[in-house]
Amino acid sequence: MSVMGTLRVVDLTAHLSGPFCTWTLASLGMEVIKVEPPAGGELARETPPFVNGHSLYFDSLNRGKKSLVLDLKTLGGREALHRLVARSDVFVENFRPGVRDRLGCSDETLNSVNPNLVIASISGFGQTGPLADRPAFDIIVQAMSGMMSINGQEGAPGVRVGFSIGDIAAGLFAAIGILSRLYERDTSQRHFPGALDISMLASQIACLENAYARWLNAGDVPEPIGSRHPSMTPFEAFEAGDGPLVIGIGGDRDWPVLCTILGATDLRDDPRFKTTAGRLDHRDLLETMINEILRTQPVAIWLERLHNAGIACGPVNSVPDFASSDLIREIGGLSDVSTPGEKTMTYAAHPLRDNAAVPERAAPKLGEHSSEILRDLGYGPSEITALTERS
Amino acid sequence: MSVMGTLRVVDLTAHLSGPFCTWTLASLGMEVIKVEPPAGGELARETPPFVNGHSLYFDSLNRGKKSLVLDLKTLGGREALHRLVARSDVFVENFRPGVRDRLGCSDETLNSVNPNLVIASISGFGQTGPLADRPAFDIIVQAMSGMMSINGQEGAPGVRVGFSIGDIAAGLFAAIGILSRLYERDTSQRHFPGALDISMLASQIACLENAYARWLNAGDVPEPIGSRHPSMTPFEAFEAGDGPLVIGIGGDRDWPVLCTILGATDLRDDPRFKTTAGRLDHRDLLETMINEILRTQPVAIWLERLHNAGIACGPVNSVPDFASSDLIREIGGLSDVSTPGEKTMTYAAHPLRDNAAVPERAAPKLGEHSSEILRDLGYGPSEITALTERS
Repeated sequence: MSVMGTLRVVDLTAHLSGPFCTWTLASLGMEVIKVEPPAGGELARETPPFVNGHSLYFDSLNRGKKSLVLDLKTLGGREALHRLVARSDVFVENFRPGVRDRLGCSDETLNSVNPNLVIASISGFGQTGPLADRPAFDIIVQAMSGMMSINGQEGAPGVRVGFSIGDIAAGLFAAIGILSRLYERDTSQRHFPGALDISMLASQIACLENAYARWLNAGDVPEPIGSRHPSMTPFEAFEAGDGPLVIGIGGDRDWPVLCTILGATDLRDDPRFKTTAGRLDHRDLLETMINEILRTQPVAIWLERLHNAGIACGPVNSVPDFASSDLIREIGGLSDVSTPGEKTMTYAAHPLRDNAAVPERAAPKLGEHSSEILRDLGYGPSEITALTERS
Repeated sequence: MSVMGTLRVVDLTAHLSGPFCTWTLASLGMEVIKVEPPAGGELARETPPFVNGHSLYFDSLNRGKKSLVLDLKTLGGREALHRLVARSDVFVENFRPGVRDRLGCSDETLNSVNPNLVIASISGFGQTGPLADRPAFDIIVQAMSGMMSINGQEGAPGVRVGFSIGDIAAGLFAAIGILSRLYERDTSQRHFPGALDISMLASQIACLENAYARWLNAGDVPEPIGSRHPSMTPFEAFEAGDGPLVIGIGGDRDWPVLCTILGATDLRDDPRFKTTAGRLDHRDLLETMINEILRTQPVAIWLERLHNAGIACGPVNSVPDFASSDLIREIGGLSDVSTPGEKTMTYAAHPLRDNAAVPERAAPKLGEHSSEILRDLGYGPSEITALTERS
């Protein structure tokens, strides 16, 4: 077992941001104990679609974790949680600010139970400030941050980014913050009494650092620009004879190489297109001319020629296209999860999971590890029955 | 100084994925030394727009780092790099696989120079496998992974996500991997001879875990769905009298609350809309009915009513809208960077930077810290002149 395997995480998160964070911690090898309420457990267990009664939304994200059901509205449930916290390293939650205080998990209580605990809270707008107590979801912070305003077809209104970047960015920043605090704690005995305060909205702004830099300092208004790059061209989607492909040049030295592949000496020799700045100034014209050439051959032909010349390019895949390719398996992009007596499920692999050190395990059934964990915490059989009877 | 401040990172990255990773490490307090080639330095320094001769693209991302110019094509440059590596903790690069070997930075060489070094490589497709030696940029991995295929308006072709998620996701996973290796190294003396191998393509798949789970196990083909959520509604953008707003309900119990705000007892009592599954089945109709009501009042009125009732909602801001709001300052979303004698610049804040422990510092000028760093490495004045004369 790696050192990561000696670290225990008490996970009170739900939905996506927190569970994505703890999926990452579990993938690194930490023991993640998901504490769920009785009568149904975490809400995401009810999110469709379902296979064999399992929510795919839930099962994809909660792989490699354990499930402990505790009713934190009871004294006994809170006491069990405190016993667990006393033997854990990390506590993560993504309730609305203030909610965990009412569940016996204020900073003060957690610190008194375990002074060495790393506490992390993820919320929409941070633990303090004018919006702290407002609910937030991915789409709310995408909309408020300006993320939506730069996403979509040129000239059209902005559209939500098609995956939940509002949640996932916060989950990743939370994982980084937790690891840095664990490092400080265990190499220097530095103590952090306050919780790590991760705001989904602030995480979006960081993802938009380039858009903010351009507006704040140069007055450029970032808007949807389709599949174009704001400051580089050709670096976008084009249309070949049988569908789209993407081409990106690495700089001015790639430009004549691309022109040669396209058989376009006129483009290569045109002084308007020699530099990035010139190509950006005339990008509409340039795209039209390139598309005209690309439409004469299918995607596969162009990709081969471009690959051979070292120009970055690729097909525009659907999820089914790529999921059924050999390539996705060759790069370790998928992960099969077997449970005895059930159909093997396949999910996206976590890029940091080392298969030799951290085997893939299915998401836990509700309360699957309750008895085992409570026994380890010193509870006897009748106490365990009392604590778990409502789940 | 925090413990993070005792960690030194040798940063050979360029463009976005690697610099986003090391921006994160610098924001945590690590000393990040950006090693740049002579004659212009890192390529991103040439990316427009420019203010006072600075590339905003470069300056936003390279805050808090130091710049050391070394010509790694010379023996002297490589030797200086090795001296630096010997006194560092982390080495990060995002060259195409194989390139760093030719610059005297193979795993073998780096390990012989510093057996405790944490080495991280970020690349398009990983260090091995059929596509390892191909160039990749953000748009290439967005297209190949299926990311583009699920982003955009419903019924329209997929469009590139408007910020560089292909780079940024890889940068964040790299930061997580580096921190976990530092933790293992410094709490257990565990040694990692191989580099951390971060693939931009694999990082995209992880961001798409929900889309992959649905296709691979239930056969749902993920496609662009505009600003809708795949498995929840109302959870999307709507049109009020004077513009768009977003509303997201947290589950079935929010539904009657929303209906009351909308003054729509008919919706509330309609059995088709009582459950998430029912609302998803009739979402076109439901959206039309909700938009009809929302259009009767401006955004501000609806947001106030929704906020008061605890329903998650928000305006759809442009970057200028949000950048000039009080709110962005109140949540610490922006960071001012002063350089003596220059205009103060403002950028997105890094969500993990603690202002008290890690002051904001402008991106370095090319070679700004060369002399200081080389002196610390034991080079004398004439050696420093010889090493830096070409920059």
